[in-house]
Amino acid sequence: MVGYAFMGAAHSQAWRTAGRFFDLPVEPDMAVLCGRDGDATRSAAAKLGWRSVETDWKQLLTRDDVQLIDICTPGDTHAEIAIAALDAGKHVLCEKPLANTVDEARAMVAAAERARARGVHSMVGFNYRRVPAIALARQLIAQGRIGEVRHVRGTYLQDWIVDPEFPLVWRLQKDKAGSGALGDIGAHVIDLAQFVTGDRLTGVSALTETFVKQRPLPAASSGLSASGSTERGEVTVDDTALFIGRFGGGAVAGFEATRFATGRKNALRLEVNGSAGSLAFDFEAMNELSFFDGAEDPATAGFRRILVTEPTHPYAGAWWPPGHGLGYEHTFTHEIADLLRDLGTGAEPSPSFADGLQVQLVLDAVARSAEAGSGWQRIEEVND
Amino acid sequence: MVGYAFMGAAHSQAWRTAGRFFDLPVEPDMAVLCGRDGDATRSAAAKLGWRSVETDWKQLLTRDDVQLIDICTPGDTHAEIAIAALDAGKHVLCEKPLANTVDEARAMVAAAERARARGVHSMVGFNYRRVPAIALARQLIAQGRIGEVRHVRGTYLQDWIVDPEFPLVWRLQKDKAGSGALGDIGAHVIDLAQFVTGDRLTGVSALTETFVKQRPLPAASSGLSASGSTERGEVTVDDTALFIGRFGGGAVAGFEATRFATGRKNALRLEVNGSAGSLAFDFEAMNELSFFDGAEDPATAGFRRILVTEPTHPYAGAWWPPGHGLGYEHTFTHEIADLLRDLGTGAEPSPSFADGLQVQLVLDAVARSAEAGSGWQRIEEVND
Amino acid sequence: MVGYAFMGAAHSQAWRTAGRFFDLPVEPDMAVLCGRDGDATRSAAAKLGWRSVETDWKQLLTRDDVQLIDICTPGDTHAEIAIAALDAGKHVLCEKPLANTVDEARAMVAAAERARARGVHSMVGFNYRRVPAIALARQLIAQGRIGEVRHVRGTYLQDWIVDPEFPLVWRLQKDKAGSGALGDIGAHVIDLAQFVTGDRLTGVSALTETFVKQRPLPAASSGLSASGSTERGEVTVDDTALFIGRFGGGAVAGFEATRFATGRKNALRLEVNGSAGSLAFDFEAMNELSFFDGAEDPATAGFRRILVTEPTHPYAGAWWPPGHGLGYEHTFTHEIADLLRDLGTGAEPSPSFADGLQVQLVLDAVARSAEAGSGWQRIEEVND
Amino acid sequence: MVGYAFMGAAHSQAWRTAGRFFDLPVEPDMAVLCGRDGDATRSAAAKLGWRSVETDWKQLLTRDDVQLIDICTPGDTHAEIAIAALDAGKHVLCEKPLANTVDEARAMVAAAERARARGVHSMVGFNYRRVPAIALARQLIAQGRIGEVRHVRGTYLQDWIVDPEFPLVWRLQKDKAGSGALGDIGAHVIDLAQFVTGDRLTGVSALTETFVKQRPLPAASSGLSASGSTERGEVTVDDTALFIGRFGGGAVAGFEATRFATGRKNALRLEVNGSAGSLAFDFEAMNELSFFDGAEDPATAGFRRILVTEPTHPYAGAWWPPGHGLGYEHTFTHEIADLLRDLGTGAEPSPSFADGLQVQLVLDAVARSAEAGSGWQRIEEVND
Repeated sequence: MVGYAFMGAAHSQAWRTAGRFFDLPVEPDMAVLCGRDGDATRSAAAKLGWRSVETDWKQLLTRDDVQLIDICTPGDTHAEIAIAALDAGKHVLCEKPLANTVDEARAMVAAAERARARGVHSMVGFNYRRVPAIALARQLIAQGRIGEVRHVRGTYLQDWIVDPEFPLVWRLQKDKAGSGALGDIGAHVIDLAQFVTGDRLTGVSALTETFVKQRPLPAASSGLSASGSTERGEVTVDDTALFIGRFGGGAVAGFEATRFATGRKNALRLEVNGSAGSLAFDFEAMNELSFFDGAEDPATAGFRRILVTEPTHPYAGAWWPPGHGLGYEHTFTHEIADLLRDLGTGAEPSPSFADGLQVQLVLDAVARSAEAGSGWQRIEEVND
Repeated sequence: MVGYAFMGAAHSQAWRTAGRFFDLPVEPDMAVLCGRDGDATRSAAAKLGWRSVETDWKQLLTRDDVQLIDICTPGDTHAEIAIAALDAGKHVLCEKPLANTVDEARAMVAAAERARARGVHSMVGFNYRRVPAIALARQLIAQGRIGEVRHVRGTYLQDWIVDPEFPLVWRLQKDKAGSGALGDIGAHVIDLAQFVTGDRLTGVSALTETFVKQRPLPAASSGLSASGSTERGEVTVDDTALFIGRFGGGAVAGFEATRFATGRKNALRLEVNGSAGSLAFDFEAMNELSFFDGAEDPATAGFRRILVTEPTHPYAGAWWPPGHGLGYEHTFTHEIADLLRDLGTGAEPSPSFADGLQVQLVLDAVARSAEAGSGWQRIEEVND
Repeated sequence: MVGYAFMGAAHSQAWRTAGRFFDLPVEPDMAVLCGRDGDATRSAAAKLGWRSVETDWKQLLTRDDVQLIDICTPGDTHAEIAIAALDAGKHVLCEKPLANTVDEARAMVAAAERARARGVHSMVGFNYRRVPAIALARQLIAQGRIGEVRHVRGTYLQDWIVDPEFPLVWRLQKDKAGSGALGDIGAHVIDLAQFVTGDRLTGVSALTETFVKQRPLPAASSGLSASGSTERGEVTVDDTALFIGRFGGGAVAGFEATRFATGRKNALRLEVNGSAGSLAFDFEAMNELSFFDGAEDPATAGFRRILVTEPTHPYAGAWWPPGHGLGYEHTFTHEIADLLRDLGTGAEPSPSFADGLQVQLVLDAVARSAEAGSGWQRIEEVND
Repeated sequence: MVGYAFMGAAHSQAWRTAGRFFDLPVEPDMAVLCGRDGDATRSAAAKLGWRSVETDWKQLLTRDDVQLIDICTPGDTHAEIAIAALDAGKHVLCEKPLANTVDEARAMVAAAERARARGVHSMVGFNYRRVPAIALARQLIAQGRIGEVRHVRGTYLQDWIVDPEFPLVWRLQKDKAGSGALGDIGAHVIDLAQFVTGDRLTGVSALTETFVKQRPLPAASSGLSASGSTERGEVTVDDTALFIGRFGGGAVAGFEATRFATGRKNALRLEVNGSAGSLAFDFEAMNELSFFDGAEDPATAGFRRILVTEPTHPYAGAWWPPGHGLGYEHTFTHEIADLLRDLGTGAEPSPSFADGLQVQLVLDAVARSAEAGSGWQRIEEVND
């Protein structure tokens, strides 16, 4: 695994846990953690449970005890590492967004296709697809329970940079992160909306905004100026992105991603209205799915709060009795379990790098529309 | 009062009730109900409690016992009646949307200004402003409790025409209704968003859609064709309108109005995120306001569910003890009470016809953007 | 109508409104308001819309323009007025609790039976039975939608006397009010639980408590002592009553009534669990009913939030479109409408005085158990 | 660890995970899993991650690589194993309820005291104390944020045996389980109520009921009779227990535990009303705590939905960013982390066996009251 911050901790827990609750064809061996700073990486490896460390990710390519590389670094490094890994015959799990640009993403898809021909597989880490409630929503739509999809309403609301004194971390720098709320969290809600409906956005009209345009440099890289005030730098990404769009199947959609929704901590919300019913989800109550069944008698119809913890619910049967919910980290455990099972059977893991590229194309269309006065931007189709 | 359908019943109840709970300078006398069909109007007048009837609204202009004309008819008749009434020296309360076109709305504003010079006043019926929770939200924002407004999120979701066999009523015909979900319910959520924030939209990018393009003609005007099938007509209005926009004060916004959100009955929802807090409202739980106070210690911060039924809450003190909620009709009772108090003191009633025109300009910009490939449309400023 | 405080205002609005929305056999004439203080009563009559006033309720018995007497006074006066009215051939609507003692209630039932023989009818005002969601709950249970009832869970939580400086009003005095939270609000939740299930409590075990034992005398009756401190009096009623019990049909139950539940304003809550489903209600969200249908596939089962505003829902068809909710006062309007329709058809209005007596017997058993160390107290059966 | 069913899986995950997120003085070595059936135990050990197996728990007492014994077996075996383990110098973590009888619990407390003198410690597994929202509730009450506690309302509602064909598992047999809903889940809500308030029940009045009196014998132990019908056995425990009670500090309380609340999956709910505020919790939304602060201005007061995922919240800082919730299993991880830290510092782990005995005394009083016509039963005090 490359990287050991927030995502690294979540992935480590997933690698350790997946085989304890799911029947997997192989038992993962957490061989090596890779980071640039040797001491910090050694300390993280001990904490997170990795057997050894490397400080240069290229070493992973040659180690025989490494069959899969899990990339948890910022987006600007994804393409280089992933392509090299695939070309070296290592399976790859790459965190989202797949890349910071469409061009990088295309190159990664090409590498994934080359690798696949040799039995080497890849997956992009849209972990929220593995929330049981989201997987159930997809099932219900696929079964026709809400009929023809008319409306998709997606938001991803956070508030962690409302304070203008919050520092200029890498996620606020375009060269590292590619974009702001759009790529970091907008990518998730776009992917979910397309995953749940089984349909894809074909065009968008967008606007973006950066509310706080300068921020203090982080402690590490900043210093006090002669006058004693903190040095500030430019925020080069969006604080929020909003767009309206159309799906291939005829649905209309509205999306919003922001880190300025005071009080909303992780409100990844999705509502889908169909001709025969509706579904609604909010990650802040991740064990629940709201379902309105239009086939019910109006006298007793209403949005049902389904606790998605029954043995028959996706993933839930591997865990605890009904009503005993799961948490954020389980989305990663499910992701690893699905990945390892697919590697065992030779099935193509999903979401693929092509899926990652397609989301990148949506992000790109949003950014282009926002730059061009909100005019409509068509989204290129991706062949899977 | 002209018109006696759904709106007519709500207004009648308000005229009858306002003086029983609020101290008013005058006691309304429900003098005359006007409708085209004499028998039906007489029957409605008896039911709704009006003293006499007329079948030609022009008769109202000359009656000495009529000081105020309350217009509850479809939008295509608003301009003619309102202008004539004002010019005849009658105060006017006109249901929203003010008119079906910007030109009509401008003419009405001009008439209102002429009349005002003679002490004759006018008001447009955005009744949802008088929901206590909405009035409280406006107070809290005006007091700075959520700081600088960054995000506005407004939806008005209904589902009463999801069934493709629902008939082609007047609200689905452009010549009668002006537009569809946009003008009927979108107008409400636009007005509320501007009212609550004390700010105005300056530009939008929009899309609209008509999902069901043909519908059975209503029983009255249709007939069975030779083949036995019901005759159908064109739906000439939008089923849904979505738009993103910007407010003058720097906030960004997303809006959606639809009659195809299966299971959502009257989900007039508004969320506003500011630099220091947030507010959220849903008319389906109209006695509640959600408030997040960013000044709270994070350990105990959270969205508060305020039951807006305390004596100190707007309008609530006139009614019942805390926790004993109000209903839809009370928004009209508050509207009438405010109107009569303003007429008593000579204050200009609010929202004014100019406010109605301004909403009309937003609707117009939305429609123009939707027609022109979602490109950005600036909204003309209105002087109040 | 006798009495013009909180209940008087609610009843007046109901008398004025019922005929405007429901088809009634008679149009009520709000003839006379009765109160002891002439000036105050005249002022109230003008405000509430009554035609004349009396200062001695006995005058009502002889007036020809009075066919029905609506008793909205404290409980200690119910028996005398109601019995005299019935014996004088006036129909009676009497606010709950029916009386302050079982003996008074028995005498009232006897008077009601005598009167009924002469075509004179009576009703006790458990208005919450007329919340559409409650009426729907009763329908669903009667239809067997939740199967055999196993659990009943009822609470009525308020907080208006948490402040120890809140004065010693009549509701806190046993000679006026009979009991405290128990009779005032506990009576409502007991009645609702029995109404909704169609079953009756057969025995209880209880405890009561008075948290604040002395309070300032109300301004009218108090004075400052020589030392300048406010005079205080004994609180002679319960602040809270809790009990567990059994229903005739085999269900077990827990109840609680309190005015010390800080933050709960009018939380009249009822949950019923049956062998095939469950229902839950909270008056603070009075337009909603929660329903769990045990017959659903577990994969999509969940508590449904039914918005009880559909045309097919009890009472709702007379009002507004779906999603446009009702308020507290509508429970009284429904009560009056039902009463007048029953008087028109000669049907016996419900709940009857016998129903009121039965609730009184439950209250009495609760009080006796609480006094006797929480030992079990059987509840006498009442024949209807 | 002894036992490897539901509880065993949860504890294994906790032993494996605690050190990855919390700084602990020792790294646990999952040495040995013990079960009666060798093959099943070996299979479970492989799945759950234990190094070796034993089929006789007495072998654990003599193994040098065992410093702590974690007892996850049914309640009838707790006393024997725990006492032997403590006397053999092994620390003990024992699942709740501590024992099936008060006498066994007393003997365990005596063994714990003997052991403590030798530096050997013990803990009883009331894992729900380690839900962050519950730990926060305790903090807020200890800080006086809700003032003097007046009301405690606790329920634990499940529905897994509503079906009368659900088999007669060990939890429905008094000799194995001690009691039914009362000891299994009622014990949790009693412990939580006392933990959160920092106060203890002093007396109760109770009733219990067994709705389904006979059930099919489980597959393993049953057989088809000659006539082809399934053999049935007696349910010897309660299906539900309800009681009212008093706390030492003056609060009154109502409790209910049931496995017959159709649709309620794991509704461990607790509400506490104090003179200055209120708290409410429901495990079905375990990452949330509702808090009403009575010190707020009534105009903006309301129950706050606190997402208990902030870095300053109990336990939450060790995990993910705000809004990224935890699940059921984390309660056990927290339990193990607390236990190991206490063993490291020599602090007495909490809850102690004495705490377990005290809960047992409450359960015993409830059972005695229910048997004796719901009369009041005082609860003996336990010295800690």
